[in-house]
Amino acid sequence: MGMREFVVVGNRAVTESFSLNDLPGAGRMDILCRCINSAFFLSHDIRRDTRIYLVMLGSPKPSLIVRFEGSELKYLNPDERSAGSLISKAVGQKGVDDFEISSTPGVWVRRGGLEDVLSEKNNIIYLREDGKYIKELEMSNNCNDSIVFVLGDHEGMKFEDKELLDEYGATRVSVSPYSLHADHCIIIVQNELDRRESCK
Amino acid sequence: MGMREFVVVGNRAVTESFSLNDLPGAGRMDILCRCINSAFFLSHDIRRDTRIYLVMLGSPKPSLIVRFEGSELKYLNPDERSAGSLISKAVGQKGVDDFEISSTPGVWVRRGGLEDVLSEKNNIIYLREDGKYIKELEMSNNCNDSIVFVLGDHEGMKFEDKELLDEYGATRVSVSPYSLHADHCIIIVQNELDRRESCK
Repeated sequence: MGMREFVVVGNRAVTESFSLNDLPGAGRMDILCRCINSAFFLSHDIRRDTRIYLVMLGSPKPSLIVRFEGSELKYLNPDERSAGSLISKAVGQKGVDDFEISSTPGVWVRRGGLEDVLSEKNNIIYLREDGKYIKELEMSNNCNDSIVFVLGDHEGMKFEDKELLDEYGATRVSVSPYSLHADHCIIIVQNELDRRESCK
Repeated sequence: MGMREFVVVGNRAVTESFSLNDLPGAGRMDILCRCINSAFFLSHDIRRDTRIYLVMLGSPKPSLIVRFEGSELKYLNPDERSAGSLISKAVGQKGVDDFEISSTPGVWVRRGGLEDVLSEKNNIIYLREDGKYIKELEMSNNCNDSIVFVLGDHEGMKFEDKELLDEYGATRVSVSPYSLHADHCIIIVQNELDRRESCK
């Protein structure tokens, strides 16, 4: 079955373990934690068909990609600290290089940036205020196709990352007449996909 | 102008100051904190047309109503601890009785339960999985009318609260084919209202 995939770029997200008592101070880690919550939580379940990549571009280490895999995920509670704890364990792993290693069940980490994620994907959608309204987006009827939504954090997306998204043929899509936080956008996307599936 | 109002019932939410390091342990205060974030945050702004009532039914004090008023709100950041800090100050206020007192700018607290809020309201909507789908809901075109959305926390709504909502003529409305967390529901409602306004 096709997966629902999200890629969130954390422009300042730190690449070492951090204090759970100050998530905003860890390069606005609070945003990434809320994105995890938004992507995975149903009221009494975890969305098994969802995957999220956090692209962490802050200091002190070279950039990292942390992947959360809904089908394997354990030990995740809805509060920010819970997601923060799993992210902190991932970025604090020793010996991280270009090959993914698992830090806790369903969480993986490797070195890399946005292009390393995009180069493995098709059906890329770049969530932007000036994009085409999501309701008007035609999606594949093939249930085996995954769909990948890319979002920026509070700083949005750097010029070179926008160019990269154009190179990879990303469709620009909007979810609201207003500019929203990344985690709020993810909720709206999941809701739109839920509705489309339930109408089939 | 009509307000967008939300009422969230925290069945176990503690009615005294609590530790920001364990929001789930304070009667699932993390849920209420995320509801604050969902209700108020645009990407670079606070929604001035929004008001939220937290109905806190936990121990040790008699139940409390904490009101956040978007038009007056200060010192609120998007992370859970920030909302938690403002709620903790409100419930920790000395001398709280049936008259509202302000704890920080835009935050008010008084004694009371769900009925004390409902008795002041019209246009009440009760968000439930088995309700009518929100897209099919006809809303007033009169911009002076406020609309009030009532939601339960992880325990949902107690039998007597459901009866109360029926008594007050609440319309049952659903936002998703799945059962969602209260904070996710608020995002979807705000998005629906944003769209309707932008289409006018």
